[in-house]
Amino acid sequence: MRKIPAKAATPNLNTETEEELQRTTEDRMRNKWIVINLLLLLAVSTPAQQFESGEPVARPHHLMPIPAAIQFQAGRLSIDASFRVATEGHKDARLEAAISRASRRLEGRTGFEFSSAAPLNSHPATLLIQCAGPGSAVPSVREDESYSLDVSDKQAILKAATVVGALRGLETFLQLLEGDRAGYFIPSVSIQDKPRFQWRGLMIDAGRHFQPVEVIKRNLDGMAAVKLNVLHWHLTEDQGFRIESKRFPRLHQMGSDGLFYTQDQVRDVIAYARERGIRVMPEFDMPGHATSWLVGHPEFGSAPGPYQIQRKNGIFDPALDPTREELYKFLESFFTEMAQLFPDEYIHIGGDENEGHHWTKSEQIQAFMKSKGIKDNHTLQAYFNQRVLKILQKLGKKMIGWDEILHPDLPKDTAIHSWRGPESLAEAARKGYDGILSAGYYIDLMFPTWKHYKNDPVAPGSNLTEKELAHILGGEATMWSEWVSPETIDSRIWPRTAAIAERLWSPRDVTNVTDMYRRLDAISVELEELGLTHEKNFDMMLRRLAGTKDVGPLKTLVSLVEPVKEYRRSQEHPATMLAPLTRLIDAARPDSEAGRRFATMVEGLLSDAPFFTRNQERIKIVLTEWRDVRPALDAMIDRSPILREAQQLPRDLSEIGNAGLEALSYLAAEVGPPEGWRESKMATLDQAAKPKAEVEFAVIDQVKKLVILAAEMPGLRRIPQSQWKDRVRTLTEEKTR
Amino acid sequence: MRKIPAKAATPNLNTETEEELQRTTEDRMRNKWIVINLLLLLAVSTPAQQFESGEPVARPHHLMPIPAAIQFQAGRLSIDASFRVATEGHKDARLEAAISRASRRLEGRTGFEFSSAAPLNSHPATLLIQCAGPGSAVPSVREDESYSLDVSDKQAILKAATVVGALRGLETFLQLLEGDRAGYFIPSVSIQDKPRFQWRGLMIDAGRHFQPVEVIKRNLDGMAAVKLNVLHWHLTEDQGFRIESKRFPRLHQMGSDGLFYTQDQVRDVIAYARERGIRVMPEFDMPGHATSWLVGHPEFGSAPGPYQIQRKNGIFDPALDPTREELYKFLESFFTEMAQLFPDEYIHIGGDENEGHHWTKSEQIQAFMKSKGIKDNHTLQAYFNQRVLKILQKLGKKMIGWDEILHPDLPKDTAIHSWRGPESLAEAARKGYDGILSAGYYIDLMFPTWKHYKNDPVAPGSNLTEKELAHILGGEATMWSEWVSPETIDSRIWPRTAAIAERLWSPRDVTNVTDMYRRLDAISVELEELGLTHEKNFDMMLRRLAGTKDVGPLKTLVSLVEPVKEYRRSQEHPATMLAPLTRLIDAARPDSEAGRRFATMVEGLLSDAPFFTRNQERIKIVLTEWRDVRPALDAMIDRSPILREAQQLPRDLSEIGNAGLEALSYLAAEVGPPEGWRESKMATLDQAAKPKAEVEFAVIDQVKKLVILAAEMPGLRRIPQSQWKDRVRTLTEEKTR
Repeated sequence: MRKIPAKAATPNLNTETEEELQRTTEDRMRNKWIVINLLLLLAVSTPAQQFESGEPVARPHHLMPIPAAIQFQAGRLSIDASFRVATEGHKDARLEAAISRASRRLEGRTGFEFSSAAPLNSHPATLLIQCAGPGSAVPSVREDESYSLDVSDKQAILKAATVVGALRGLETFLQLLEGDRAGYFIPSVSIQDKPRFQWRGLMIDAGRHFQPVEVIKRNLDGMAAVKLNVLHWHLTEDQGFRIESKRFPRLHQMGSDGLFYTQDQVRDVIAYARERGIRVMPEFDMPGHATSWLVGHPEFGSAPGPYQIQRKNGIFDPALDPTREELYKFLESFFTEMAQLFPDEYIHIGGDENEGHHWTKSEQIQAFMKSKGIKDNHTLQAYFNQRVLKILQKLGKKMIGWDEILHPDLPKDTAIHSWRGPESLAEAARKGYDGILSAGYYIDLMFPTWKHYKNDPVAPGSNLTEKELAHILGGEATMWSEWVSPETIDSRIWPRTAAIAERLWSPRDVTNVTDMYRRLDAISVELEELGLTHEKNFDMMLRRLAGTKDVGPLKTLVSLVEPVKEYRRSQEHPATMLAPLTRLIDAARPDSEAGRRFATMVEGLLSDAPFFTRNQERIKIVLTEWRDVRPALDAMIDRSPILREAQQLPRDLSEIGNAGLEALSYLAAEVGPPEGWRESKMATLDQAAKPKAEVEFAVIDQVKKLVILAAEMPGLRRIPQSQWKDRVRTLTEEKTR
Repeated sequence: MRKIPAKAATPNLNTETEEELQRTTEDRMRNKWIVINLLLLLAVSTPAQQFESGEPVARPHHLMPIPAAIQFQAGRLSIDASFRVATEGHKDARLEAAISRASRRLEGRTGFEFSSAAPLNSHPATLLIQCAGPGSAVPSVREDESYSLDVSDKQAILKAATVVGALRGLETFLQLLEGDRAGYFIPSVSIQDKPRFQWRGLMIDAGRHFQPVEVIKRNLDGMAAVKLNVLHWHLTEDQGFRIESKRFPRLHQMGSDGLFYTQDQVRDVIAYARERGIRVMPEFDMPGHATSWLVGHPEFGSAPGPYQIQRKNGIFDPALDPTREELYKFLESFFTEMAQLFPDEYIHIGGDENEGHHWTKSEQIQAFMKSKGIKDNHTLQAYFNQRVLKILQKLGKKMIGWDEILHPDLPKDTAIHSWRGPESLAEAARKGYDGILSAGYYIDLMFPTWKHYKNDPVAPGSNLTEKELAHILGGEATMWSEWVSPETIDSRIWPRTAAIAERLWSPRDVTNVTDMYRRLDAISVELEELGLTHEKNFDMMLRRLAGTKDVGPLKTLVSLVEPVKEYRRSQEHPATMLAPLTRLIDAARPDSEAGRRFATMVEGLLSDAPFFTRNQERIKIVLTEWRDVRPALDAMIDRSPILREAQQLPRDLSEIGNAGLEALSYLAAEVGPPEGWRESKMATLDQAAKPKAEVEFAVIDQVKKLVILAAEMPGLRRIPQSQWKDRVRTLTEEKTR
């Protein structure tokens, strides 16, 4: 198939002709493609016929993150089997590999096999990449990631100062792909793009639950797709020491249950990340969260030991003993080994959640503090940090740690990683420290996407100077792994992290939540082409739970619930890190999409004053399914004892459906419900809202709104219809919160 | 949770009590499990109350393959958090690892975290494994895989002569798991099991499409789950030389596009397979199918070269030159390297499809043949085989090759791999050759499971003696990879290969197709716990095709079609090995399950003479969906040009649904259709039956049966009702074939 310039197009092709042409070729399969090509030729610029090619137009797209500047124009660049990429200027193996990967993804979506022949003068490249230079040899926080992308009817031109910029532009190019009757195309567009923040990360905790290399790799691909540029690799925890140390092999041999990354694997991951323009920053959490270090090296602990790998979650007492000179010799040797392994300029030392109970209990440590005039544990940790900092400086590395490391003695070239919030970050910036934000991006806490999306690294009203602002480097989503396995981790990271990636890349004023969700749905599907399992493991887990392929009823239920938020899972169902993560809560996903869709339907109905008919039939169908699915679910639970803990949920769902249906009936009948009905239904819904099996329904508030509306109708009829809409909004929003 | 012996049970617990107890605990989540435990305690042996524990009973199960001898008894062994395994007799790392894997799978299904503490006298093991010895150090074709499994209310005892036997028994144990209101359990049973054939393989062709190590590993897990014991690893093809040779690195460096297994990876796979009691037999296909060897070593070709990696599928001319002494030196060196890498006693030399065109064209080869008195190419290949055989014998290896290698000069310790059929295998056995069957097990040809299942390695009526029969070692499913990618290969292998595994393991008289399908559905879900993607990649591929999560209409369509059979895909849509395998045909799967379900419904209706009402409403719902799904599909195709090739399918499906609905209407109205109706509908259905986009509907025959029934009703009414059933069967089966 050859690419046909749009100017050759005949814009008035109608679909009848297309169908006729198609029909005549039914039995001539071999000729079919030729005819379709012909159709493409004829139809290629049809959709833009009312505009001059190149004229500015508005059009929906699903770019995520949204570029710094974007202007669509009339016209389109056809994507067909003749698709080819050419480069001008700098070219290297990294760029070529990225072009090849992008081409394979485009082939996968379109079904075309692209020619491997180089573009010719007579047949120019579809995409021309003009890259000025390679960028940093090691991905850097100062990397120039900017690019521009200009797509016309004839060609797409991607310009970038560095290969990393070109990589970012390639991802934008892929996200621009659309299809219609005339075929696949990229709309004509002009994009100038660069990130708002230069540090856009995802932290993966491989300590609490080990995550094999394949998990890391597919998530690196996902990160690259949404322009994240830092993998923060949390490698040590109370529950596991996950990296091979050749100098101190007892660390990983005794501290990991055999679940650790070999140094070859680490190098492989770093190379894989570099290919995608992603830094890999290791974290070695200390002096707390250090139990697994001490299993093989109890001599560095603050209590006598022996130590065992921690199996529970929480904050534990074991900590390195900052008073021992041998510890610093050990750390210097250890960090020397790790500094050689990890080329990134930062090393994360954690520093969080050390409560120092073992320090307080140790006479020897107390004596040390007294002799040095160290007044409390926080100051002792600052002393420790200073010592570690000197080691890292000697190795040419920058130190970063969690909020706790902030202390008057801390040198200014240390960076702060904030779990406390944008205010603490602003505070650090005022003091002259670089910082990144993770508070508000804790994706392990199961909050909906919009909540993370609204969380800006720069606190509103923080009034930072330009110079202070520059200290706010960006942020990181944190995937703490108490409750994730390789099977479920993707569904906790994606798609929500794509919205966080947008927060960190796109201009501050990109904040439309509805539009974010619309684009997120599209991006979520595209992320699957990278092997991510956030979507496909859902049904698989339901099949295992139910022991059958026929999971329809269970899917209806589990799609409507979300895992409990924050730390309630641990509180309500304590379990060790060895427990299987295959329960209903593990299949359930944060930010119920079915819940969002239902909310949209109900919003439509509520805004349809004074008729309240919009979406009514669709809502009724949904509610009826909820009401009636119980017997099938009960039978399923009977056969699958693992679901027994959830046996109240079908009853609740039935009640929820019933409450909504009754409300709709009163609305339709234009009669008010009897006395006590509203209170009774609200009580039922409150009961249903309580978590069971550590999941909670995501649709209660919406059904409550229907109940309130039905109950308030008699009152509404007493005020002018013009006021109904506002009144309904006030009534339903007040009463459900 | 503690395991409670069944004799402590109170059988008359009713569900009301259970519900009440449950309700009172709603808000006391932490106590919930205690109460459920109590319920389990009370209810544990309820289902068997009418039988004495141990009394023989019949019960459905989903074992696959079915054991040689099995007898269920009344009673059950409860599986709860107290589950523990103990061993007596031989124990080694392989057995311990297998126990650990089995325990993790059991945990995953049940949600329990099993204690890691060793069983105590006061608390004996749930499963006791008594293993006599380790078995062969290297998995062998003579391995004793027999085991017995006796499950009582108190304990399961698994006895085996070898660790491999114990592994087979562990898989049976896992397949026995059931659940009901009283919890998870293994029914009391006595099993004596051993395989009918000692060679039960899966061939994976890594040549045409490279399959990464993770694909091989998850399929090894799947093989172990259904007791297959040979991975036949097809490593070289015209399209790729997929294994690293340190002696001749030009082979993999120039012949593989960089897609090959390193020797470390090969060792890793062999160890992984050995852990599961699976042999790994490599195939180096020669003298034909050898293009990729010649890219780096044209000097061994029969034509001057140069050679390029073959991109198409088919049979190609390049062949090794059997007249060159240098070739045998090279092969001796190469096989020496490979013999060290692969410990299996067999090496497969392929030998298939060498048409010898380059031999015929070569003057030098013709001269050689003349001088040696070699009359034709087949004899020249026999000469080549003899030379290769001597090399392999020197290395202590046995040779195996495809049918073509059979020649009067072939020594009897060579084994024949038959693609021709059981008759050729019987013929070889009569001549004294060992052999294995793959004809009838070509899973790449997209035939339904029952067809493979009915294919016995011993040809009916072959009248082999006991001694001749012993030469028939077993068989192999062959996954040729012209049209499979890592994304789709599992869906071509599974679940169908589980039925082939049963054919090769279970007694010859295990042939009930309906029961096979019932069990296959359950096994298919269980196979997913091993990471196999045969089920979960289906929806994922549909989402990519449609570019959205809302794939309902597309799923309806694609569930009803199957890829075209045999070699029609290549014929109808020639493509290279580099083409993306992401089209509708790639998402579609062989042996449509939705088609089978529909067939069962229609069979039910047809057998319901003289009323013909059974399943009628269900069939109507299904047909209505087919008829009405077209607009949604049309819209989807408009947005996704990759689906354009399938645009006739929604129209066909609509016609199919409509034909069926009309038939049901005539049936219900008890009137005969007008003249010409039957012919018109049959013509429509014949049209719809023609493949489009290389897929074909799996439900046409069933709808034809409805049409025939409706049309024949007036005739039926003229014969006695007692004859209707047989008459309907005759009419519908004759006319649809």
